Amino acid sequence: MTTDANKVSKTAGYSTHISKQFNDELEQIRTELLAMGGIVERQVHQSVDALLAGDLKMAEQALAIDTQTNAMELLIDERCTSIIARRQPAASDLRLIISISKAVVDLERMGDEAVRICKQTIELNINGGSHGFQEVRHIANLVRNMVKDVLTAFARGDIEQAYKVAKGDRAVDQEYRSAMRTLVSLMMEDPRTISSCLNVIWVLRSLERIGDHSRNMAEHIIYLVSGKNVRHQSIKDMKSTVEQSI
Amino acid sequence: MTTDANKVSKTAGYSTHISKQFNDELEQIRTELLAMGGIVERQVHQSVDALLAGDLKMAEQALAIDTQTNAMELLIDERCTSIIARRQPAASDLRLIISISKAVVDLERMGDEAVRICKQTIELNINGGSHGFQEVRHIANLVRNMVKDVLTAFARGDIEQAYKVAKGDRAVDQEYRSAMRTLVSLMMEDPRTISSCLNVIWVLRSLERIGDHSRNMAEHIIYLVSGKNVRHQSIKDMKSTVEQSI
Repeated sequence: MTTDANKVSKTAGYSTHISKQFNDELEQIRTELLAMGGIVERQVHQSVDALLAGDLKMAEQALAIDTQTNAMELLIDERCTSIIARRQPAASDLRLIISISKAVVDLERMGDEAVRICKQTIELNINGGSHGFQEVRHIANLVRNMVKDVLTAFARGDIEQAYKVAKGDRAVDQEYRSAMRTLVSLMMEDPRTISSCLNVIWVLRSLERIGDHSRNMAEHIIYLVSGKNVRHQSIKDMKSTVEQSI
Repeated sequence: MTTDANKVSKTAGYSTHISKQFNDELEQIRTELLAMGGIVERQVHQSVDALLAGDLKMAEQALAIDTQTNAMELLIDERCTSIIARRQPAASDLRLIISISKAVVDLERMGDEAVRICKQTIELNINGGSHGFQEVRHIANLVRNMVKDVLTAFARGDIEQAYKVAKGDRAVDQEYRSAMRTLVSLMMEDPRTISSCLNVIWVLRSLERIGDHSRNMAEHIIYLVSGKNVRHQSIKDMKSTVEQSI
């Protein structure tokens, strides 16, 4: 005999089952995003190390990672669309999926910038010279920390760390402008360095862009945690937008 | 007296009503995306015209459009999320919303590049010089056509025109590399031109990036029309991926 209670319990069992599957799917794309983040983080490291050490083999290796990150971008993006279509998520689940589908684009673009750094390393090997390496090392350290911190912030849903990353981008922009001035002066003093200085200028530009993408990811985290879209805002405005919503 | 037929007809009426509202909402974000596209298209035009004419006032005007496009990006993006949450769209409706939410990011970034062109125009006014303007004019023409064509392709859902845009990006890349070589030679021949040549190099870079974003938008259109994600593929592979799916 089937009682109403029995029916309810069966339905509850079914929906618990569905909901467990759904949670597993969300956890899977979150894990995959973080895995992709780890790969891009190493690629950025490697591309800078290859430049500073003049190691062409390492540059080629870092360059080859591109195929892998491109494939991961497509895979995670497709999973996000498929989850939306099948599960019809709402509220914070939908925010998680949207944040992941946006973050994946930024990660892929960071990987593209690492590829550009590798290509400049290969060209620089032909042009010769190591002008501006000190500036590269300095800015690369700042940017690597941003990438590391933003991935940790994503893993933990840590909004305070996301603010810290967004703030870090300003420091990178300042250092970038100062390094550019140094390199332009160098080129003017000794025009024979123009080609090699330009290689380093493009590297600096790529690092600055990786900083921008880290900031974008920080904004996705703030959206994920608070539900507030803080793009195009100053750090101060970001915080007050989020606080108003609490 | 309420008959079953009456009930059915009432339900049908209700769902037609809902579906009309839904279609109106989809049409609204599509129209808004195209409106934003028109604004960015004009901004790109204006930024290049300001550079070539040395018109600082026009550069300031084009720069100021940024606030408007940033706001439109946020608005359209929020509408997309809200439609997904409320309407739980599937299949081609979901693809339309996802394509729009991605295209809006590319449009906003194109606007950012136009802003960069304006900033270089203002700096160039201080540094003096008009080296490489012929190259800028030539590449700007190619890129403007890409922007125009990709917006038309979006408006019409025209996959053939989307392929054409993606193909156009290759021509821009070739011309960009050739223009870069010309400018580097110029800087070497006459180091006094280094600062002004660098301004023009950054403009060329921004134009090349606007070309990249147009190509991205073309890929969103191909996804919208065919359901196939063709990112990171050659034109030939794009076509065969889409044909396989038909």
